[in-house]
Amino acid sequence: MKTYLDCFPCFVEQAIRAARLLTDDEKIIKQILDEVGAYFSKIPLTSTPPETGDFIYRRIREITGVNDPYKAAKKASIEEVLSIYPHLQEMIRESDDPLLTAIKLATIGNVLDFGISRTYKLMEEIAKISEMKYGIFHYNEFREQLNRASSVLFIGDNAGETVFDRLLIENLGKDVTYVVRETPVINDAIEEDAIDSGLHEVAGSTAPGTILRFCNEDFLDRFEKAELVISKGQGNYEGLSGVDRKVFFLLRVKCPVIAGDVGVELNDFILEGINL
Amino acid sequence: MKTYLDCFPCFVEQAIRAARLLTDDEKIIKQILDEVGAYFSKIPLTSTPPETGDFIYRRIREITGVNDPYKAAKKASIEEVLSIYPHLQEMIRESDDPLLTAIKLATIGNVLDFGISRTYKLMEEIAKISEMKYGIFHYNEFREQLNRASSVLFIGDNAGETVFDRLLIENLGKDVTYVVRETPVINDAIEEDAIDSGLHEVAGSTAPGTILRFCNEDFLDRFEKAELVISKGQGNYEGLSGVDRKVFFLLRVKCPVIAGDVGVELNDFILEGINL
Repeated sequence: MKTYLDCFPCFVEQAIRAARLLTDDEKIIKQILDEVGAYFSKIPLTSTPPETGDFIYRRIREITGVNDPYKAAKKASIEEVLSIYPHLQEMIRESDDPLLTAIKLATIGNVLDFGISRTYKLMEEIAKISEMKYGIFHYNEFREQLNRASSVLFIGDNAGETVFDRLLIENLGKDVTYVVRETPVINDAIEEDAIDSGLHEVAGSTAPGTILRFCNEDFLDRFEKAELVISKGQGNYEGLSGVDRKVFFLLRVKCPVIAGDVGVELNDFILEGINL
Repeated sequence: MKTYLDCFPCFVEQAIRAARLLTDDEKIIKQILDEVGAYFSKIPLTSTPPETGDFIYRRIREITGVNDPYKAAKKASIEEVLSIYPHLQEMIRESDDPLLTAIKLATIGNVLDFGISRTYKLMEEIAKISEMKYGIFHYNEFREQLNRASSVLFIGDNAGETVFDRLLIENLGKDVTYVVRETPVINDAIEEDAIDSGLHEVAGSTAPGTILRFCNEDFLDRFEKAELVISKGQGNYEGLSGVDRKVFFLLRVKCPVIAGDVGVELNDFILEGINL
């Protein structure tokens, strides 16, 4: 996805929100904002928003000296979802279409965001699973492509959501590589979080990845060769929606600019396959 | 009012909104955003937000070459309110407390903002005049100070709202100087708009004014010597809330940062006297 003009106020908001969680010192936060503002002229509208996000979160890490501020919050989130994991497994096992239910739960997992009251909100969303409103739902295409594929590259998003991804992976019946971030950014899962979520038990290997331009060669090679790619969440959509290979995006739309880019409404769920 | 960290995303939003009304060219709007971003480091948190607003709107005027883009919209707004002016005069005349009713109408006039469906919205607000929720309402203090004063300095805000101000001025029974902006900024009234609103019939003179630092000496002199100062709208609150003289602010709170600064809720009306 390109960077829209409306992403710019949001970059500033994100910087404030992220910095405030690390410091009360207005001078430090102001310094971060000054840097973000000065960086505007270096952000072409043709770049993807996560490229700017990477700059912002890197500078916040460097200026505040805090590397993984959400380590504890991420662990708590994973623990919470693990505590309902047997219940979710049962839901899937007892449903008429286990793959469909696992996909829906994995999309609900993308509702998880740092700061919301997690378990409560999650159980509420799970209770409404039969009413879920998908703006785009390429389920038949997904099922068909999955049947043909022998291996899957699965690009994860937030810690906690990872446990939902594990449930989906258990129901794919394929050899899966689960990809997470190399460096901590807010509550995005890193390798340690994936392992805490038990993903090493279902996925063959983990590899760091985010924006293609910044990705290591191992990831790029896997991304190119993968028979089926599943990408979770908005950040990965923003980074990958412009690639010229098949990708299935699974996410909750939480931002009006992305809603416009996808062509759905805010808060819609989507399972969208591109270049099919 | 100081500049809060949360004002920075809003500066960027304002620049986008104002620029979009003048051009569809993303490159020009991006150039404006780049300049606004680069300007962040020159905005001390001790400055008032309108000082940054002045920079933004000046650069937009310079870059797009459009000086008073809302001239027609402002005229239409004034015409609309003038069309209900006799009705409003009657409302005031027939009320138990004409000054109170005139103050309430003048506050409702501050709801006027470019872009909302004006007459409809206004008539709706006027119909609810008896339920108006003031977060701060220093009416007794205002009435007392007014009785003691022989002259009033009245600082206006938007075109159209000016007609409501005229109604209030008619009910102050004092010698009034009505102050407007020297340069067009969005739909803020300039001298021509004040005259179109008939303010020259009720106010002794008009003088341009906005942020004290940028004001001409004539205004500063009047501001210092005025017995009673009435200031309309958020922009003037932001510019003047830190002064060390008595001022009565009359406005609708439309921004969460200002709500926090004043200590009221979003969408509250306020009649607040400072340094009483």
